[in-house]
Amino acid sequence: MAYNVLPLTRLIEHFERLPGIGRKSAQRLAYYVLNMPREKAEDFAHCILDAREKIIHCNVCQNLTDSEKCPICSDDARDKTTICVVETPQDVLAFERTREYNGVYHVLHGLISPMNGIGPDQLYVKELLARIGQGGVLEVIMATNPTVEGEATAMYLSRLFKPLGVKVTRLAYGIPVGGNLEYADEVTLYRALEGRSEI
Amino acid sequence: MAYNVLPLTRLIEHFERLPGIGRKSAQRLAYYVLNMPREKAEDFAHCILDAREKIIHCNVCQNLTDSEKCPICSDDARDKTTICVVETPQDVLAFERTREYNGVYHVLHGLISPMNGIGPDQLYVKELLARIGQGGVLEVIMATNPTVEGEATAMYLSRLFKPLGVKVTRLAYGIPVGGNLEYADEVTLYRALEGRSEI
Repeated sequence: MAYNVLPLTRLIEHFERLPGIGRKSAQRLAYYVLNMPREKAEDFAHCILDAREKIIHCNVCQNLTDSEKCPICSDDARDKTTICVVETPQDVLAFERTREYNGVYHVLHGLISPMNGIGPDQLYVKELLARIGQGGVLEVIMATNPTVEGEATAMYLSRLFKPLGVKVTRLAYGIPVGGNLEYADEVTLYRALEGRSEI
Repeated sequence: MAYNVLPLTRLIEHFERLPGIGRKSAQRLAYYVLNMPREKAEDFAHCILDAREKIIHCNVCQNLTDSEKCPICSDDARDKTTICVVETPQDVLAFERTREYNGVYHVLHGLISPMNGIGPDQLYVKELLARIGQGGVLEVIMATNPTVEGEATAMYLSRLFKPLGVKVTRLAYGIPVGGNLEYADEVTLYRALEGRSEI
């Protein structure tokens, strides 16, 4: 653009950097913020600073929290003998939405990916080993994504934990509920067949 | 969610209020901001405050700007005898992208809409009248959207300006370039037929 209004251009650029936001959406969002009541815009800005400032990793499960120990780890009603290992904090939310899991979590904050130079040392594996080492853990559920990197990470960790005498399990593969057999890929269908159960 | 992390929840809510951002996108954006380097997140927050603080309306054309008179109105190379009247600052950007228009603009910041209680007094009509009243304006192009409200506003303003001795024009209607006749609605097609020109 020949006629730049710097504060506006910079705001648009910031929105554009966010995931899934293109040039047009970034413009729309920036103009929306400009038309907000002043207090709302200020509150938005402060929320960003506040979240960035106050949110830390739980010192047990590494999930995002604003206290030393996250609400899930602090909850006495949760079953501390079962740890569900996930890649991101968003995955924890996904499991919590099922309302069926009553164990605790461990957030790795990434997956092992030699291609991107990410090894176990860059993840929170040491902390997970320490938790298992303290005893009292009966089962570790590998709940990483069913991708190449998710599988590799689950494999690597299960070999690491088995000698410690804990049961290591993996999420079931199969056809998604509400899905359509016609559109299921052959690997998924094969896994669904393999994992069939009696009714 | 049973386990709320307040600063995170508030940030998600802020993102969710933006146009076109649903619950899932808001979560993704909030987590993205949390994973940003601290300086980037701070810069983002300051940009919001800065834009909200510094961006004002140009005292000539009412477009958004950070100086008293916007870069377009300040540009001596622009033809001040032609004013293109638009609804929003985004419309100005759209015209600038054509690189074909060399006149100036006037941003109404809305359209006349009796249903929503918006009359000419809530728009920047008075300012436009004053510009025309100062003399030197030969043509006013009505470039509001081809919607009911856009048409009504164009109609209303053209009746207001004609007695002042300026030429008032309206954008051409027709089939969009690259469009498909099959999908054109009948009104558009009729207008395209009506406005046909010799080749």
